[in-house]
Amino acid sequence: MRGSSNSWGKRRKPDSAQTKVQQCHPGSGTGRLSIVGLGPGSLDLLAPAARKAIALARVVVGYRGYIGLVEPELLKGKEVFSTGMRGEVERCHKAIEKALQGLDTVIVSGGDPGIYGMAGLVLELIKRECLEERVEVEVIPGIPALVAAASLLGAPLMHDFSVVSLSDLLTPWDLILKRIKAALKADFVLVIYNPRSRKRRWQLEAVLREVEMIRGSSVPVGIVRNAARDGQEVRIQDVKDVDPGSVDMLTILIIGNSQTQVVANKMVTPRGYMEKYGDKIEMEVK
Amino acid sequence: MRGSSNSWGKRRKPDSAQTKVQQCHPGSGTGRLSIVGLGPGSLDLLAPAARKAIALARVVVGYRGYIGLVEPELLKGKEVFSTGMRGEVERCHKAIEKALQGLDTVIVSGGDPGIYGMAGLVLELIKRECLEERVEVEVIPGIPALVAAASLLGAPLMHDFSVVSLSDLLTPWDLILKRIKAALKADFVLVIYNPRSRKRRWQLEAVLREVEMIRGSSVPVGIVRNAARDGQEVRIQDVKDVDPGSVDMLTILIIGNSQTQVVANKMVTPRGYMEKYGDKIEMEVK
Repeated sequence: MRGSSNSWGKRRKPDSAQTKVQQCHPGSGTGRLSIVGLGPGSLDLLAPAARKAIALARVVVGYRGYIGLVEPELLKGKEVFSTGMRGEVERCHKAIEKALQGLDTVIVSGGDPGIYGMAGLVLELIKRECLEERVEVEVIPGIPALVAAASLLGAPLMHDFSVVSLSDLLTPWDLILKRIKAALKADFVLVIYNPRSRKRRWQLEAVLREVEMIRGSSVPVGIVRNAARDGQEVRIQDVKDVDPGSVDMLTILIIGNSQTQVVANKMVTPRGYMEKYGDKIEMEVK
Repeated sequence: MRGSSNSWGKRRKPDSAQTKVQQCHPGSGTGRLSIVGLGPGSLDLLAPAARKAIALARVVVGYRGYIGLVEPELLKGKEVFSTGMRGEVERCHKAIEKALQGLDTVIVSGGDPGIYGMAGLVLELIKRECLEERVEVEVIPGIPALVAAASLLGAPLMHDFSVVSLSDLLTPWDLILKRIKAALKADFVLVIYNPRSRKRRWQLEAVLREVEMIRGSSVPVGIVRNAARDGQEVRIQDVKDVDPGSVDMLTILIIGNSQTQVVANKMVTPRGYMEKYGDKIEMEVK
């Protein structure tokens, strides 16, 4: 994965450097920063590339909960910088600063760092500070939480799907609801991130009522908490039976489309093979 | 990942077994079938759980191109069954039959087996043949192609996104286009699978024109061919400059939303941190 086609910031000048001189930090130092996806949490699902990047790094930066998913052995002898949940900007700063000091740095993210993870913020900050030529960034992908959740539910994402975060901290609720309605009306399977938190309590209920109105009360909803981590919980319920109070921010919901079925406690969204080829399928089972 | 909460078909009777007796194959044999995601192709991105499942299997089933991604060493001494592109149903049959013979079987899928992969078809067939009690299925997730592509482009999926396949083999074109329009109007980032094949030539062009109409001609489009495989190609272009003729079925397109930017040849869809916290961000760069 590492290679010139995958490195960042070497190819052309930052597009707006001239207009933001006072914000910029020109200089001669350069650094390397890997934004690494840890996958859902189980070491069995950690890509070797992610493991290798952490092993080779001098500095490891991350949210406390994610640092806890890394084998302690891997962190030995490294500088580790972690903060709590709302410290995203601080963590990105720290990682960029360390990289600029010439220390190979990784910033770790749960799941995939490019899906509601740290990759975007790192790149935004690098742009703001005009550091494009000084920090080489690479993104090492991971298995996203939505994929881990889907695998535990069966095969709910076999057809077109939309992914929406209910967090209205950075996105207006109107836009979130607009996207949800559009996805439901176009019969996408719908994946919900950040469904509910201690402070954000009514949004999921509102979404479930939209689902009932547009798809009916018996559409299956897969609810996965702590996918592939300690405390994993998996259940499938009709939308009318989902208790929003049982859902927290460690949970992902996957809402079926009009075709999604529940078979022996698994959720499956057929792609249409049976309709097209069903009659021709002959199977010999001993 | 293996464990009772993740196994399939043991918990309750198939819901319609009684009405389809003549199709069913009751019997005493049982088998174990793992549907395994190989990730995008690079061994560096293959999850240890997937490797382990292949190593432990007696039979490995898969599309010829995907079997080629598995280390030859891993396949030694195993029965390998592969077919060409249109052999999905045949491969699933074979895998189920082998599992029923009591042979630990894996069926491999590129990327994640639950995203336009083999997991759904296996479960559909098992339901059709009423084998829910006889075949224990588990899905081992992999890094999907869309995630590998996004990581090479930068961070285009930092905000809500929709995923659509342009293959109209099993899905009517009207429904595909309806979903594309809905996603564009609700300002989702849009991921396109199966954009173009030798026989399917005009659909991508039609989609790009919709994008221009709804998002304007300068929205960035990331185009990744063979993500994390031999022959990898990555480029970012304004939608008006994309040449559909340069795109084939090994390509994934990621179409930015109204906020997506190109910074130093990377695509970033900001999540809004800068708008919310930008003024407060002070960074010391030496």
